[in-house]
Amino acid sequence: MTYCVALCLQDGIVFAGDTRTNAGIDHVSTFRKMYKFGVEGERSMVLLTAGNLATSQAVINMLFRGIQQDSERNLHNVATLFDAAMLVGEHVSSIAQSAQTRAHTQEGFGSSFLIGGQIRGQVPELYQVYQEGNCIRATRDTPYFQIGESKYGKPILDRAINYHSSLDEAVRAVLVSFDSTIRSNLSVGFPIDLLAYRNNSFNMPAGMRIDESDPYLHNIREQWSDGLKSILQSFAEPPEYYFK
Amino acid sequence: MTYCVALCLQDGIVFAGDTRTNAGIDHVSTFRKMYKFGVEGERSMVLLTAGNLATSQAVINMLFRGIQQDSERNLHNVATLFDAAMLVGEHVSSIAQSAQTRAHTQEGFGSSFLIGGQIRGQVPELYQVYQEGNCIRATRDTPYFQIGESKYGKPILDRAINYHSSLDEAVRAVLVSFDSTIRSNLSVGFPIDLLAYRNNSFNMPAGMRIDESDPYLHNIREQWSDGLKSILQSFAEPPEYYFK
Repeated sequence: MTYCVALCLQDGIVFAGDTRTNAGIDHVSTFRKMYKFGVEGERSMVLLTAGNLATSQAVINMLFRGIQQDSERNLHNVATLFDAAMLVGEHVSSIAQSAQTRAHTQEGFGSSFLIGGQIRGQVPELYQVYQEGNCIRATRDTPYFQIGESKYGKPILDRAINYHSSLDEAVRAVLVSFDSTIRSNLSVGFPIDLLAYRNNSFNMPAGMRIDESDPYLHNIREQWSDGLKSILQSFAEPPEYYFK
Repeated sequence: MTYCVALCLQDGIVFAGDTRTNAGIDHVSTFRKMYKFGVEGERSMVLLTAGNLATSQAVINMLFRGIQQDSERNLHNVATLFDAAMLVGEHVSSIAQSAQTRAHTQEGFGSSFLIGGQIRGQVPELYQVYQEGNCIRATRDTPYFQIGESKYGKPILDRAINYHSSLDEAVRAVLVSFDSTIRSNLSVGFPIDLLAYRNNSFNMPAGMRIDESDPYLHNIREQWSDGLKSILQSFAEPPEYYFK
């Protein structure tokens, strides 16, 4: 499995993905799930992917090849982020469909994607692209999307994040969200790729690969764990009538 | 969906289940998912169920009918908790299989169960029964089981609970686990049925139905929410290199 999350906030977009891939419990590997596209000063896009690794890699390959061959529609020339999301959607649905046809099955070859960023002259946007090729856009009401093993890490985002959260706050909540997921699910693992795009910068940061030895992450994990325990301990004892 | 959890600890067994049932988003109802069996002073058992409601209810009916008709094997006369779990498993696999045969399908009629308690002269035990009819037992290493919509509420249990946790601690963690699940998933809802069995009491408490207006639950939810936010705010700002 995989866990990826992206948050489209008032100050920018935070992207994060783990790096664990598993095909069965005895075939666990590290694969990057975050890819960057763009033209310095003009457009910045980040793609996160979860699902069938062969399909994901084929889509990424087709996207990079489109740019190299200067195709009529590629991520460097599409007019809007929506068009970028639709292009990703076309690739994934056609690749997944071909594989399924060859395998005489209706499922098992799908991948989903998050693509977000900004094109000069436009507002920053974030899309979730489904394996069927359609997509939805993040809004102020629902500023974040998750793909992959999303449930363990959702409660903290639901509580802590809204459109007006700062990038700093978002990064902290994302690290906690990953930590919760990784502790509860073996199929999601360190290191984490993290990238925070600042709106209207049109400058793509290198992004950060955070492994378990990262001192900031280490402190956050300890503080979070200790903090949760002390909240639990601060609760009054359950009333007598709970045990009647 | 549904969320149920049971924790088999050194001092007793805590059982909890929500009460929401949904067949599609416009067919949401309240159904009890916790059932009590036993003979005062001799044996105490609690059953929690998740999955297809018709299958779950049919299994419960067969278990009660077995007792009423004083069948050769029923929950009041089976020799061990393991035998009780196997009896539940036989019922669920046969009922689900019949429904699937009639519907010409291989799935969609399954239910899973947690059954725990104590028979005089024996240690307390907790089993998870799968829809195929087999079962696993909780141990000191893994003292709790969840069924239904389990992922949202798992991280807090993984962090806060071990075999030596007190019943008080378990109740608090369980309430937080339900709160996290209910906030993130519409298919799980209040009220919660909660029951704490004290080991070697052979006395079945009435159990408690906790709705949103319960003052203790209300305080815990507020304290938890505020506490999480203050832990997040207490984190140092992410280092500069995170944004490079």
